[in-house]
Amino acid sequence: MNAKFIVGIDLGGTNLKIAILDLKYNILEKKVLNTKKYGKKEHLILAIINSITSFFKNNNLKKKDILGIGIGLPGPVDNKRGIVHFLPNVPGWRKVYLKKVLEHKLNLPVFLDNDAKLMTIAEYKLGKAKGFKNVLCLTLGTGVGSGVILNRKLYRGEDNASGEIGHMPINERGERCNCGGIACLEAYIGNNKILREARQLFKRNISLEELSAKAFEHNKLALNIWQKVGRRLGTALVGVVNLLNLDAVVIGGGVANAGTILLDKVKETVNRQSMRVQARRVKIFKARLGNDAGLIGAAILVKEQKLE
Amino acid sequence: MNAKFIVGIDLGGTNLKIAILDLKYNILEKKVLNTKKYGKKEHLILAIINSITSFFKNNNLKKKDILGIGIGLPGPVDNKRGIVHFLPNVPGWRKVYLKKVLEHKLNLPVFLDNDAKLMTIAEYKLGKAKGFKNVLCLTLGTGVGSGVILNRKLYRGEDNASGEIGHMPINERGERCNCGGIACLEAYIGNNKILREARQLFKRNISLEELSAKAFEHNKLALNIWQKVGRRLGTALVGVVNLLNLDAVVIGGGVANAGTILLDKVKETVNRQSMRVQARRVKIFKARLGNDAGLIGAAILVKEQKLE
Repeated sequence: MNAKFIVGIDLGGTNLKIAILDLKYNILEKKVLNTKKYGKKEHLILAIINSITSFFKNNNLKKKDILGIGIGLPGPVDNKRGIVHFLPNVPGWRKVYLKKVLEHKLNLPVFLDNDAKLMTIAEYKLGKAKGFKNVLCLTLGTGVGSGVILNRKLYRGEDNASGEIGHMPINERGERCNCGGIACLEAYIGNNKILREARQLFKRNISLEELSAKAFEHNKLALNIWQKVGRRLGTALVGVVNLLNLDAVVIGGGVANAGTILLDKVKETVNRQSMRVQARRVKIFKARLGNDAGLIGAAILVKEQKLE
Repeated sequence: MNAKFIVGIDLGGTNLKIAILDLKYNILEKKVLNTKKYGKKEHLILAIINSITSFFKNNNLKKKDILGIGIGLPGPVDNKRGIVHFLPNVPGWRKVYLKKVLEHKLNLPVFLDNDAKLMTIAEYKLGKAKGFKNVLCLTLGTGVGSGVILNRKLYRGEDNASGEIGHMPINERGERCNCGGIACLEAYIGNNKILREARQLFKRNISLEELSAKAFEHNKLALNIWQKVGRRLGTALVGVVNLLNLDAVVIGGGVANAGTILLDKVKETVNRQSMRVQARRVKIFKARLGNDAGLIGAAILVKEQKLE
């Protein structure tokens, strides 16, 4: 194997991140674009292609130096055939043969997967999930997703659609979710919902960063919001922990930056409300790899070609 | 292998069933005792021993004809060491070295497991779950339990404590459950809860059998109860189906005898509220093996020695 580098891409509803990594998953160069600036799917794909070619030029890289391109996408992906089914938070993507398009344009092998699964595999190989046998890795953001490691392997399900913890109902009745469900976890703790609640309480627009900062300063309103998020996430996790007798839960994504305030409430809820044996077993951590988990997972996908 | 028969035992909160099965899992003789009649754990164990020895005598069987004894128990079991941790619905069982005790008394190999897991393995090998890759098998009764088949293997979890769907919360707030949880599914659809609701509506004691019969006669109150049970079970299943992208759900246990009324409501809820890909994938069935699933599962446990 002569190739020494991998292109990792993390396409999110807000940011498009593109990076060159070495075979040990160190990030050598990274570029962050604003996803929303590229209205049409075609423009976004073009931006990806242009970013990659300029990376190659700037670093004097040849095609033969590159093992392949890995891409994480925020929605259901056919990882075997390289098709994006649709992206709930990026308009215009429906049945996109992204692997085929990019391989044709770039003449390099391309691998796709769901972003929560890539984040999970990154935390499992290099982060907080390492060494555990049965783990759920969550990513909290606009969407609330997860990946499931069972018996030390990524559990995919027949449609590669496992892990949708954001669409577990946490109440019998409640708001209808975009997915068609009722009272889905995501409708309570997705970024949009948190921001809306914060706006109502503070009577002005307030960012998640500010909301976290306020909580660290012991602002009661902010603390209250994060504790409610923690309790609700905890309620969903009680169900998963009792069902799967998990060894660990790893929590990542932007919202996880509320840090110990959120995490402590999740732990408290899971410890108090899960069954004794399950509660004693499960450890709950904040993710280690932070914002780069998706990029690293994309690179792992390329290096291992097929993730289990 | 000369042994041609297996002893299967299904110890439930209400009935203790003991049977002789052949190696193709046909039940040759079965005995049903009332669990509650045997107040103390020691008396129940003695009843098991006496039943087995009288089976042997009646059928002129020698020890060498018997491959072993398999036992399903309604609670957490250390299947490797043969220890019953405790039985929520059978008083007095705590840390019982049942394998050791019975092997000493009967001089035959004894295997223990959780009853929901044995019912699952029976439905997977011989019943409705056969041929599916990722399946949840539920058993509805005083307790609400399940077993999980993932990638064609029984998924146990590190403590053999997986499958506790009865203790998934279906609301953020609600009654506290015996397990320590809040608003657990079992607290809504366990037999006791159904009977209590029926008593309130009908202003008298009414059995589950009568309640089912009344629903078949289109009695509105009875229909209403079963539909509510179906909707609540459906709510919990939406979460599991979205999380695990299951191929099939198999529903067994006494309550499942409410038949299509219950099952139709479960299907309707799962189809309407699960995510599209997951809803399209999952099939929902009534269990095939009925009341004998536990006995058959216990026999499979003996024949395969160790279930995966």
